[in-house]
Amino acid sequence: MPGSQTKSDFNFAWPFRVRYAEVDGQRIVFNAHYLTYFDTAITEYFRALPYDYMGQVHRTGEDYHTVRSLVEYKQPIEFDEDIEVYVRTARMGRSSLTFLLEIHSKDADDLRATGEVVWVNADQATHHSATLPKELIKKIVAFEGDGVKR
Amino acid sequence: MPGSQTKSDFNFAWPFRVRYAEVDGQRIVFNAHYLTYFDTAITEYFRALPYDYMGQVHRTGEDYHTVRSLVEYKQPIEFDEDIEVYVRTARMGRSSLTFLLEIHSKDADDLRATGEVVWVNADQATHHSATLPKELIKKIVAFEGDGVKR
Amino acid sequence: MPGSQTKSDFNFAWPFRVRYAEVDGQRIVFNAHYLTYFDTAITEYFRALPYDYMGQVHRTGEDYHTVRSLVEYKQPIEFDEDIEVYVRTARMGRSSLTFLLEIHSKDADDLRATGEVVWVNADQATHHSATLPKELIKKIVAFEGDGVKR
Amino acid sequence: MPGSQTKSDFNFAWPFRVRYAEVDGQRIVFNAHYLTYFDTAITEYFRALPYDYMGQVHRTGEDYHTVRSLVEYKQPIEFDEDIEVYVRTARMGRSSLTFLLEIHSKDADDLRATGEVVWVNADQATHHSATLPKELIKKIVAFEGDGVKR
Repeated sequence: MPGSQTKSDFNFAWPFRVRYAEVDGQRIVFNAHYLTYFDTAITEYFRALPYDYMGQVHRTGEDYHTVRSLVEYKQPIEFDEDIEVYVRTARMGRSSLTFLLEIHSKDADDLRATGEVVWVNADQATHHSATLPKELIKKIVAFEGDGVKR
Repeated sequence: MPGSQTKSDFNFAWPFRVRYAEVDGQRIVFNAHYLTYFDTAITEYFRALPYDYMGQVHRTGEDYHTVRSLVEYKQPIEFDEDIEVYVRTARMGRSSLTFLLEIHSKDADDLRATGEVVWVNADQATHHSATLPKELIKKIVAFEGDGVKR
Repeated sequence: MPGSQTKSDFNFAWPFRVRYAEVDGQRIVFNAHYLTYFDTAITEYFRALPYDYMGQVHRTGEDYHTVRSLVEYKQPIEFDEDIEVYVRTARMGRSSLTFLLEIHSKDADDLRATGEVVWVNADQATHHSATLPKELIKKIVAFEGDGVKR
Repeated sequence: MPGSQTKSDFNFAWPFRVRYAEVDGQRIVFNAHYLTYFDTAITEYFRALPYDYMGQVHRTGEDYHTVRSLVEYKQPIEFDEDIEVYVRTARMGRSSLTFLLEIHSKDADDLRATGEVVWVNADQATHHSATLPKELIKKIVAFEGDGVKR
């Protein structure tokens, strides 16, 4: 489980401005939408590596399934706020990727949420797990340096 | 465009209880979610005909594209309210279906919204429009009686 | 109802990259999410005027209710596409604002959808309609020029 | 973290039929929507106690904040599936409630997901945590019997 970190522990962040559709009756972002922010930020993280995620899906018939999501909500996020979702790969298994995520205010260093998302690469025909593409492993190591557990 | 009607003008309704995830900072259902209610109610309308929508998709390689959506919002809908979405087919073209929809409170006859959704049947490979399945036309006529324009 | 226009008929557009959470089983943006794009783009349009929408809400106790939404879907929008939502005010009534919207691909001039959204300014305590703020009217006229009907 | 349990370990379940709006490009429920199912099921669990959650909010000025959400995804859930979300309170602290959740297919005993959600009761003016209402504690104990940790 992720402890709180500073922004400098991450090599990647993706900005969001909170949409009115994302807040609930308390005028704060509804808890489920944090996972949409996480998912979108991971997509952009892949683009930044740069790794052609959709190309892999089409070429190999494999795709990732989310097998675990964790969010720890620290401070509510309001309508129209500018936030940044920080992403790094913390661990790579044979077929799994573990991402650590944090949400910070864009303009201050206040932590809004931490999280963890685990993806497993899977053959879309058999639904069996499949080894991670070598090219992806290489690119994540290059991007993250020593920070990734194997 | 649909005028306001009474519940008795419809042969089908589907109940919803408003989820907290569906209300916004005004504590009323966010405008986009009306289209999700409409879409879900149309799915249930097909089941009630009874028409095997997913079977058609798998058997023919055709599926419906939404080409037009209209919502007229009359009275706000609040968290936890019990509502009913009324559906009927108002018109069938060569490849298109026009649905009229209304949202009423479950417990009173107050109208919350009216709407219109147009679907076009399309070949999923070529994306060209395709004639409506004969079985579907027959079932809608049987279900709606004289109310459907051709 | 909006006819198709060219991008140059608009003074404002807001970019979106389609999120995985926004596509459905046909791998295209689910029909309801177009209204979320519209709503978000209108928020940014107000910021561009520049008009302090949230300030008005807090200061006056008035807020806007969506009373009508129309979408005409022209060409499906896929996961990860870069799109732009064009917004302009087409008409201002005593208490109502009518926005015309279009969705275009970012990189080409292909039209994906047109739409119309009508807002009514309302006193949040009485839910009665309220006249549009004079400052807003002035800013919209300045931003849009002769294009706004009164 | 919840281990897999059988349906008989729970006194409450709430049914859902998967909406088309909830599936993604893999034609399975998008990961974030599990938290919406959880939230909705917890609302219904409160109603079943029976506890007047909205009444508390209006009477006390307190409301619950979600401080932690965990989902472990076991088997994908498809469009139009009938599922049941099982809920029980596993622990009550001074101001916090820990819910365990499971998603099962309605018609078989196959487990689709497990989860945990932690709520903290908070004064909505100060955002400080507040002790749980005594009436709620009493009702949860009555509903759950010995299964709740204190």
